[in-house]
Amino acid sequence: MHRTHTCGELRAEHAGKTVTLAGWADSIRVQGKIGFVMIRDRYGKTQCFIPKDVVESSKLADIRKESVLKITGEVKTRPEKQIRKELVTGEIELSAISLEVLNPSDPLPLELDDSVESTEETRLKHRFLDLRRTRMQKNLVLRHKLTKTMRDYLDKNNFLDIETPFMAKSTPEGARDYLVPSRVQPGNFYALPQSPQLFKQLLMISGYDRYAQIVRCFRDEDLRADRQPEFTQLDIEMAFVEEKDIYEILDGLMAHIFKEVLGVTIKTPLPRLPYKEVMEKYGTDKPDLRKEWKTDWALFWVVDFPMFDYSKEQDRYLAMHHPFTMPKAEDIPAMEKGELDKVFSYAYDMVLNGSEIGGGSIRCHDVDLQKKIFTALKISEKEAEEKFGFLLSALRLGAPPHGGLAFGLDRLAALMVGEESIREVIAFPKNKDARDLMLDAPSSVSQQQLDDLGLSLKK
Amino acid sequence: MHRTHTCGELRAEHAGKTVTLAGWADSIRVQGKIGFVMIRDRYGKTQCFIPKDVVESSKLADIRKESVLKITGEVKTRPEKQIRKELVTGEIELSAISLEVLNPSDPLPLELDDSVESTEETRLKHRFLDLRRTRMQKNLVLRHKLTKTMRDYLDKNNFLDIETPFMAKSTPEGARDYLVPSRVQPGNFYALPQSPQLFKQLLMISGYDRYAQIVRCFRDEDLRADRQPEFTQLDIEMAFVEEKDIYEILDGLMAHIFKEVLGVTIKTPLPRLPYKEVMEKYGTDKPDLRKEWKTDWALFWVVDFPMFDYSKEQDRYLAMHHPFTMPKAEDIPAMEKGELDKVFSYAYDMVLNGSEIGGGSIRCHDVDLQKKIFTALKISEKEAEEKFGFLLSALRLGAPPHGGLAFGLDRLAALMVGEESIREVIAFPKNKDARDLMLDAPSSVSQQQLDDLGLSLKK
Repeated sequence: MHRTHTCGELRAEHAGKTVTLAGWADSIRVQGKIGFVMIRDRYGKTQCFIPKDVVESSKLADIRKESVLKITGEVKTRPEKQIRKELVTGEIELSAISLEVLNPSDPLPLELDDSVESTEETRLKHRFLDLRRTRMQKNLVLRHKLTKTMRDYLDKNNFLDIETPFMAKSTPEGARDYLVPSRVQPGNFYALPQSPQLFKQLLMISGYDRYAQIVRCFRDEDLRADRQPEFTQLDIEMAFVEEKDIYEILDGLMAHIFKEVLGVTIKTPLPRLPYKEVMEKYGTDKPDLRKEWKTDWALFWVVDFPMFDYSKEQDRYLAMHHPFTMPKAEDIPAMEKGELDKVFSYAYDMVLNGSEIGGGSIRCHDVDLQKKIFTALKISEKEAEEKFGFLLSALRLGAPPHGGLAFGLDRLAALMVGEESIREVIAFPKNKDARDLMLDAPSSVSQQQLDDLGLSLKK
Repeated sequence: MHRTHTCGELRAEHAGKTVTLAGWADSIRVQGKIGFVMIRDRYGKTQCFIPKDVVESSKLADIRKESVLKITGEVKTRPEKQIRKELVTGEIELSAISLEVLNPSDPLPLELDDSVESTEETRLKHRFLDLRRTRMQKNLVLRHKLTKTMRDYLDKNNFLDIETPFMAKSTPEGARDYLVPSRVQPGNFYALPQSPQLFKQLLMISGYDRYAQIVRCFRDEDLRADRQPEFTQLDIEMAFVEEKDIYEILDGLMAHIFKEVLGVTIKTPLPRLPYKEVMEKYGTDKPDLRKEWKTDWALFWVVDFPMFDYSKEQDRYLAMHHPFTMPKAEDIPAMEKGELDKVFSYAYDMVLNGSEIGGGSIRCHDVDLQKKIFTALKISEKEAEEKFGFLLSALRLGAPPHGGLAFGLDRLAALMVGEESIREVIAFPKNKDARDLMLDAPSSVSQQQLDDLGLSLKK
């Protein structure tokens, strides 16, 4: 190991010890014959005093900021008055005995100081430098804690983390799929899944009972301000449950993560506000109730969403959540009569500070009811069999009652850390044109690669 | 909730209680006017006694195996002699008061009994049924425990779980990439990453110090017996480390997972056998030492791999691990003289019972040494800049010493659970032709989808 301690570790109790730190030169100051180096790593910063002989032997004046240093020295406590309270290591100073440059740095193409604004293009192009900022490190550390805490809670509650395929099948409904051409079967394509919806329902039919996965999803949409072509969901499904069981387990999850990650106590059960009332009162299904509730965190369920939604563009009714949602039992007669605006469902969203952070439903596990839903949506029997035959046959082979939901993990992390954009909580995001500026992707490929796939480009 | 207890939960202490179970009809027997149902879920099986009135009201004789049932009844202890020790719930029996069919099942297209062999084609085509087998449930539960235990250990040791992109850039080295055509920039492609190698090195240069991710990787290879086009790695990287620090932290990881998942004590430090000696003694770099060591688990490191490997096909030297590996300091003069068969490196594999389960290296963080490696590999300066310019520029901007490795998670899980094939520890695997038989993927897509991407199929 090139160090004995991290740059955030030394305290008054280490005084008198000889230690070695390694990290980045956050700042270097030469004053006459002596010098000062602030050495930095993920854990903190430590001020180092560099005496005359070490200033000379290390040629300190020639070392650039952000060079990687290894400093061995003696830990000395600071006098009471000189304690630097803004540093976790502010009680001490390291008096250098030797200073080695592990790797010098060229001048940086962007400034790491959080007070200096770089354009987003510059930041994304040099993302590996941008990620050195305190702000980005804080964001990614919080995101790690968030996912760890989620997984701990879900494991304790018997959820199984089961991986689902990324190379799946293109489905004609929903948003546009990203495709992956097959070389072995030229002319055929896999699709990157928009969500593991189908797989998680199948896992319930397979008897796994409780499933949870933090999983990447892919949608080839024209990007709005805060969308990414690949994004991350916390995906959850449970068998033998009713709506209220899902609220209960997820209320517990939210209380747990807010407590563990932010130290914030969230009162449960979370309020469950019917969609109809919310729309009447606020004119939106994701109102920001922080002012009204006089709280920093306004977290609640919106429940009883309509089953169908009239699309003016397409002049027809579409499923508001998805066609596999369970309609309310008392509204099934209305559905059969074609009075679709009267049909409500067991679908729900979770709203945090005016953002929808998750949504889901109890699923339809009855194949006959499922067919009635298709009829209501004017999907013919033939079309239903072609498009969803797979799920229909699974529903006939022992499908338990089940339901679940998915959280937008990027959005939740951004809200918890106080960022506007989800790009601030993603290590290597794409820009608004779906480009990775650091990698320069997407990019052209060789003719050989195209030939292997049996593809040609249209001119 | 459609149940008060799971099918693996009831014990003698529950005697006298009225409870509700929900699950699959594992077996149904009608004997004269009474009946017996074995009800099953992920947690176990419970025998239910069905009295005459319930046999009649539920039409028990007409219910098919694998239908989903909800049975309410009274828990009764069995007489000492009738305790069924093979069942976790064998102390009791549920005497049914009511039996409801939550969802009937059609006859199954395959037999779930583990003693009946189905062809792999049948199993994969009906994977959601195949996954109901006790064997598959045991495998996926073990895999969940394995990943949970890994994440716990790594979190405790300050590793950050950081997600890296799946839509990345095609690189000309290594195996064939799966490509993803861009709609926004027609004629350009993303590539699904073969590993996050580049990203994890960048995260070290960004100062994240310790990174670990369980991550999907993609390689478009002609499939050998036990390969999958998408597979899972535990991917690890650490900064400011030497080889021995990596062995130490990973010895701890292996001891932890074997203890927690299998209850097996692994003696650490794991033996570190030099590549040269292993090859001389066993003629392979992954010998199975179980017989020699008289142990069930022969787990060790093979260290000091050669830096270069002569390829007869290409009549040139290639990097044995990858070109970013650190050569042994004492062998650099030989490398400069072009004596490439004399150059060893800080690269290592971990071997379990004759399988390579992981491998990695200390990386080259010195840009000048990196250029010498390229020269040795006969990669011109121009070519190096074109292909790897990105990493070269990062090495000039404060790259710390770093190293890491990647474990094949599918293989490790298969070995731990005692399966020959990694397909037995993957919920929805592809077959040997890279097809998903359940989804019927890859498949054709619409002309509109091709037009959107600016692609046409070669006839």
